[in-house]
Amino acid sequence: MHRVKDRSLAPSGRKKVAWAEERMKVLRSLFLEREDERPLRGLKVGMALHLEAKTAVLASYVQELGAEVSITSSNPLTTQDDVAAALTERVSHVYAWRGETEEEYMENIRAVLSDGPDIIVDDGADLIVEAHRMGLKVRGATEETTTGVRRVKALEKEGRLAFPVIAVNDALGKYLFDNRFGSGQSVVDGIMRATNIMIGGKEVVVIGYGWVGRGVAHRMKGMGAKVTVVEVDPFRALEAHFDGYRVTTMDEAAESGDIFITCTGNINVITKEHFERMKDGALLANAGHFNVEVDIKSLERMAMKVEDARPYVRRYVMPDGRKLYLLAEGRLVNIAAGDGHPIEVMDLSFSLQLMSILYLAKEEMEPKLLKVPREVDEAVVRRFLELEGVKLERLTEEQKEYLASWL
Amino acid sequence: MHRVKDRSLAPSGRKKVAWAEERMKVLRSLFLEREDERPLRGLKVGMALHLEAKTAVLASYVQELGAEVSITSSNPLTTQDDVAAALTERVSHVYAWRGETEEEYMENIRAVLSDGPDIIVDDGADLIVEAHRMGLKVRGATEETTTGVRRVKALEKEGRLAFPVIAVNDALGKYLFDNRFGSGQSVVDGIMRATNIMIGGKEVVVIGYGWVGRGVAHRMKGMGAKVTVVEVDPFRALEAHFDGYRVTTMDEAAESGDIFITCTGNINVITKEHFERMKDGALLANAGHFNVEVDIKSLERMAMKVEDARPYVRRYVMPDGRKLYLLAEGRLVNIAAGDGHPIEVMDLSFSLQLMSILYLAKEEMEPKLLKVPREVDEAVVRRFLELEGVKLERLTEEQKEYLASWL
Amino acid sequence: MHRVKDRSLAPSGRKKVAWAEERMKVLRSLFLEREDERPLRGLKVGMALHLEAKTAVLASYVQELGAEVSITSSNPLTTQDDVAAALTERVSHVYAWRGETEEEYMENIRAVLSDGPDIIVDDGADLIVEAHRMGLKVRGATEETTTGVRRVKALEKEGRLAFPVIAVNDALGKYLFDNRFGSGQSVVDGIMRATNIMIGGKEVVVIGYGWVGRGVAHRMKGMGAKVTVVEVDPFRALEAHFDGYRVTTMDEAAESGDIFITCTGNINVITKEHFERMKDGALLANAGHFNVEVDIKSLERMAMKVEDARPYVRRYVMPDGRKLYLLAEGRLVNIAAGDGHPIEVMDLSFSLQLMSILYLAKEEMEPKLLKVPREVDEAVVRRFLELEGVKLERLTEEQKEYLASWL
Amino acid sequence: MHRVKDRSLAPSGRKKVAWAEERMKVLRSLFLEREDERPLRGLKVGMALHLEAKTAVLASYVQELGAEVSITSSNPLTTQDDVAAALTERVSHVYAWRGETEEEYMENIRAVLSDGPDIIVDDGADLIVEAHRMGLKVRGATEETTTGVRRVKALEKEGRLAFPVIAVNDALGKYLFDNRFGSGQSVVDGIMRATNIMIGGKEVVVIGYGWVGRGVAHRMKGMGAKVTVVEVDPFRALEAHFDGYRVTTMDEAAESGDIFITCTGNINVITKEHFERMKDGALLANAGHFNVEVDIKSLERMAMKVEDARPYVRRYVMPDGRKLYLLAEGRLVNIAAGDGHPIEVMDLSFSLQLMSILYLAKEEMEPKLLKVPREVDEAVVRRFLELEGVKLERLTEEQKEYLASWL
Repeated sequence: MHRVKDRSLAPSGRKKVAWAEERMKVLRSLFLEREDERPLRGLKVGMALHLEAKTAVLASYVQELGAEVSITSSNPLTTQDDVAAALTERVSHVYAWRGETEEEYMENIRAVLSDGPDIIVDDGADLIVEAHRMGLKVRGATEETTTGVRRVKALEKEGRLAFPVIAVNDALGKYLFDNRFGSGQSVVDGIMRATNIMIGGKEVVVIGYGWVGRGVAHRMKGMGAKVTVVEVDPFRALEAHFDGYRVTTMDEAAESGDIFITCTGNINVITKEHFERMKDGALLANAGHFNVEVDIKSLERMAMKVEDARPYVRRYVMPDGRKLYLLAEGRLVNIAAGDGHPIEVMDLSFSLQLMSILYLAKEEMEPKLLKVPREVDEAVVRRFLELEGVKLERLTEEQKEYLASWL
Repeated sequence: MHRVKDRSLAPSGRKKVAWAEERMKVLRSLFLEREDERPLRGLKVGMALHLEAKTAVLASYVQELGAEVSITSSNPLTTQDDVAAALTERVSHVYAWRGETEEEYMENIRAVLSDGPDIIVDDGADLIVEAHRMGLKVRGATEETTTGVRRVKALEKEGRLAFPVIAVNDALGKYLFDNRFGSGQSVVDGIMRATNIMIGGKEVVVIGYGWVGRGVAHRMKGMGAKVTVVEVDPFRALEAHFDGYRVTTMDEAAESGDIFITCTGNINVITKEHFERMKDGALLANAGHFNVEVDIKSLERMAMKVEDARPYVRRYVMPDGRKLYLLAEGRLVNIAAGDGHPIEVMDLSFSLQLMSILYLAKEEMEPKLLKVPREVDEAVVRRFLELEGVKLERLTEEQKEYLASWL
Repeated sequence: MHRVKDRSLAPSGRKKVAWAEERMKVLRSLFLEREDERPLRGLKVGMALHLEAKTAVLASYVQELGAEVSITSSNPLTTQDDVAAALTERVSHVYAWRGETEEEYMENIRAVLSDGPDIIVDDGADLIVEAHRMGLKVRGATEETTTGVRRVKALEKEGRLAFPVIAVNDALGKYLFDNRFGSGQSVVDGIMRATNIMIGGKEVVVIGYGWVGRGVAHRMKGMGAKVTVVEVDPFRALEAHFDGYRVTTMDEAAESGDIFITCTGNINVITKEHFERMKDGALLANAGHFNVEVDIKSLERMAMKVEDARPYVRRYVMPDGRKLYLLAEGRLVNIAAGDGHPIEVMDLSFSLQLMSILYLAKEEMEPKLLKVPREVDEAVVRRFLELEGVKLERLTEEQKEYLASWL
Repeated sequence: MHRVKDRSLAPSGRKKVAWAEERMKVLRSLFLEREDERPLRGLKVGMALHLEAKTAVLASYVQELGAEVSITSSNPLTTQDDVAAALTERVSHVYAWRGETEEEYMENIRAVLSDGPDIIVDDGADLIVEAHRMGLKVRGATEETTTGVRRVKALEKEGRLAFPVIAVNDALGKYLFDNRFGSGQSVVDGIMRATNIMIGGKEVVVIGYGWVGRGVAHRMKGMGAKVTVVEVDPFRALEAHFDGYRVTTMDEAAESGDIFITCTGNINVITKEHFERMKDGALLANAGHFNVEVDIKSLERMAMKVEDARPYVRRYVMPDGRKLYLLAEGRLVNIAAGDGHPIEVMDLSFSLQLMSILYLAKEEMEPKLLKVPREVDEAVVRRFLELEGVKLERLTEEQKEYLASWL
């Protein structure tokens, strides 16, 4: 069954998916090796992932390896309706459209779970948490994001985790690349698309200097921005300092920033006190999983007028006449206002997803948060290098011995 | 009179224009100072500029300062139809839509000229050259681009230039910023939008290391690309070398490049010989004014199959199976696949345009290629700095004396 | 007792030490807080550290906190003779001069051990290994480097580790900053001093993309070099690729590189096969702990003529006329040809050293490789930020709760 | 006749000169082509250039092409005494030592002029100005620096220029590379050598954003500094802004800067008012030709105590206890505290010098400020590219025609 915006949009979606498929070389090679064998036959797989072209490739392959796939988006604003339409032609159930209300979003999450998945593929842990609420029996799950892994850890800590979850996010082949290089590029992309403003000369305030924040700061600097970093962790703050960024508190940064980008995975990072200090024309964007980092409710309460300035740009007129602009309703600006991560990093991440799904299909595991096995992690990265034509050096026997000795 | 795609698209266009207007602070301040006086009343102004939001602001202001404006686009693929629709509400004549054929494009150029402009505002010199062909009497013109200035110089050299042309492109406040920082950012933007590919790790071949090429190379490096530069001028080649780029011939670069970007203003820069050597999957984009830099005809002749892969991406399948991709039909990738230059640099360029139009309206001049007067140039840049809050240091009297002495 | 080059050099050394002391703010503040208490009285501390100004500050403080210090250099080529002379005025025993033979070097190591240290402060693990060979009873040791920690791990793995060793190198406050930012800057510095050549436009081959290699690659790029990375680890190779470096094998890199810098901690990384392929004029430098990364013996065997070209530059003339140049005899180029790490990173590292020495003085521990306690690590970094005026943001209670929940 | 520090230092100087000679490929190739012909025989050439290894190569070649060379340094603090000693073996007259008083400096300038030069080779125009004061008859001169060209222009403007001067500084092959890439690298080098401080995280204030300032700002950013630019020219200020630097006044920058670098060619750029606002520990360095940019007299008057902290670092203790540090007595920090520009850029600059000397020897010219002929300029750069292995693309006939047409 499908609930999408308009199935007649499929032709444009099909092209987008084909383009991504052509460039997801690792995922495709892994798929082709297993295509005949159909190792997922008989299994139901429920997915919540940002529903755009790269996701459609993964979902199609999972179905074509034998599974019955139900899929929704992991965010109300990140579905591309033409891609969703095209995907109805390749998987069993699609429930997703751009601009869902919060209620519709949760209905779609429940719709996927109602299809009775054996395996869950999650992004942010909404499927996983809801499955726990519903008391669903699931063989296992995979989780794509830092935020989702944090939530699963909290469940585990309380002794409530009911099935094994593989932390795909924590694979080296994922977080070292996707979170840094993927977000780094796509957040810049999303902000440029939404606004058409010059990055050179702007003061960009990056809040949170984890892998996402590091990537965003570095690429913004590469586009000519002056970057200010706000951090709570002393090691990260010092790294940002030596990297050449101004490091200070949100209170101080609020006064001088032109563009604010939250990358913390935490709530209420930019609040009323900061809105009050900001310059006329300041832009607010979020790169974290949930739309909780900018305190939107306060912003709405403070504003005399709220109006759409451009697609993905909302204007809040303050009582003193200053205008503040919120991008993409405070949701992931790279996926809502752009096409999300570049294809190549999703090729890596989704190859790790596919391998993890295959692993869950084969092995019985404890109800724990699990790692992607190192050899799987490494195999995916090695194949990526090989297909990109990047050459690795090898250790000689003499060198291996040297490394093992204390002489 | 108006010939546009669909006037009902106006609401979306109006928002885009309002957004740009809000951020074009210099242009708006220059306009507001003269609004009451209406210094252009009684004059007809004919324009050919990429018809998107920033251009609509300039055209509207020119009309609102008293002129009767006729406008078309300076490129068949760069009109934004909603903006054109919105502009019909603010100027007298709009003739432009996205995806004009070459014939329609020239008809629109002629339509503007048929309205009998006193002043021409040009981008690439198609209006100027056609006015010469038609033997039109014109008070004067302004020209926005390197390519247009080159053509006017050729006319002047042959003794055929019939009216004064102000080389807005050659103003310091224009080419130092628009060509470098504007193209630098927007070409990266356009390529990311059109393709969703990772820039990090790609070998980007920048052909031509003038201001556009320098800007593109620098921003591509800032996004993590390995940049190779192809140049004919030894000084520029050496600059690129010391800037840390690989500098080589097109023949060599063809073999290793992932993305090729032409920035030369010349013809047949990438040709059959190069297509033959390129890697499977190579992308071809152009940042120069005309779609003549990539030899598209040869590409079409060589291909077994030509098809649209995504919007602004055309796939050419070679007899040996390799696929090459041409972006935006070889037209300006930043304007065709994106929103063109960032608002801030167009604020500078179009402020210089407005001042030049006002100058032509007031002064009688010789039929020559003329410079923007230095004081105008400087005044625009000083106002920009002031409105951006950038502070200048001042020379003391003692320092001025020192600089003038040989002691 | 002292064995140094010339004690009359002390005045120049004193100035160098005073300059460093003035800028090692964290170390000084930790020292001043404990100065009255003299917590190290009654203890003997044996040290092997590159004997230049920052080291002299640490050694002096250790002595002034009550210990009897014996010190030598951790490398035959890194002692600054004027600093060694000055240090004789502040600690009990100094055995070190620039240009020791391998035999003299080992004699000095043994001289330190003969003084019967309770605590060893080591850099590369030569003291620690030799203490094991001699069967010395030691209370505990600290180790500053990646290489030294690797050797201690090998000892531990064989069940032979006889006393506790704190891996100062592995503290976040050390390896995140010293190995990356310290080596990054100082290797560039050392190569520029030794050669006076232009970095812009050169192809720099960085072998090993650990923290040292990352730092060197990044700063070399910042100076305009084209950087090629050679790696054996697929994750690091992919990171270097996305960071925009060419990644390839040593065989390929050998042909095009202008400057080669080994950062692996391994042996025979550049060998005969590579020397044979190198361009005339190629420079070879090492940033790893031991002078084993460039196969110097093969280089000597191959050369028709070996001569000093400049201080720290040796010319090897190959039979075919090509000249290769080895910097600083293949020893740490940043310390041998320059002043070593910048003062600020050594302030961090040596503050961690001091805290670790104090910890060893107070606690009894198992004969294991131990970590610097996280709270010590963090306290040092927090104080550094405070003294540098870098402001940290703080989590609110609401935010802490959010991070702990799965809702 | 020679007046140098100590001729016994020659062996070390000889090595330095040989090292430079080996890497100055263009200059050497130009010399070798003319060696047999000796085109300068019978001429006297008087030189004032920073007397280090690269200069010695040029001076030796001029002598070996037939001239009788008299040479002094163009700055009291930039002579390398061992190089001066070695140079006595290759040219007729050397008058220079490190640490000349102002009087000695002028005596040496006059000594060169007393030898009766036909041709003057100058750096800063002290020889040229003094020759005018003495009313000397000279065939012609060349000038290496921006400052010197400014002084010659002032002479010319007053109608007092008595002989032709070729502005080598203004050749594209010189100022595009030497002033930007040469100073950029060597100023960073000089500051690191003099201080051993960390550049990463420091706020570096660059005063003057001409070619030298641009180069210094860019390389400092490349080493991890936060750069603030102070400028009087609006175009340069805007360029710095879009390049991502903070741009502000000296008054504001004084309060936050860690390192100040003057690059203006003007006097009293950092003054009493600024010293009063600076942070404890601030460093002051100059990259302009004369030691007039930092107001040293005021600094001395303000200080309670003045003392040497390290070689090339003088400590000024303010009444409120703050310490400010002046590097290299306010003289060119890159040449006084380091080895000056990298060899490669001096190869370019001195090749242009040699060609200009040969031109003056052959042609009779008017007493004007003259340009290096474009073909000479281009030939030098082309040869550099060729010898570096950098490949140029060539225009096709079709392309040349296209560029000349207005169609």
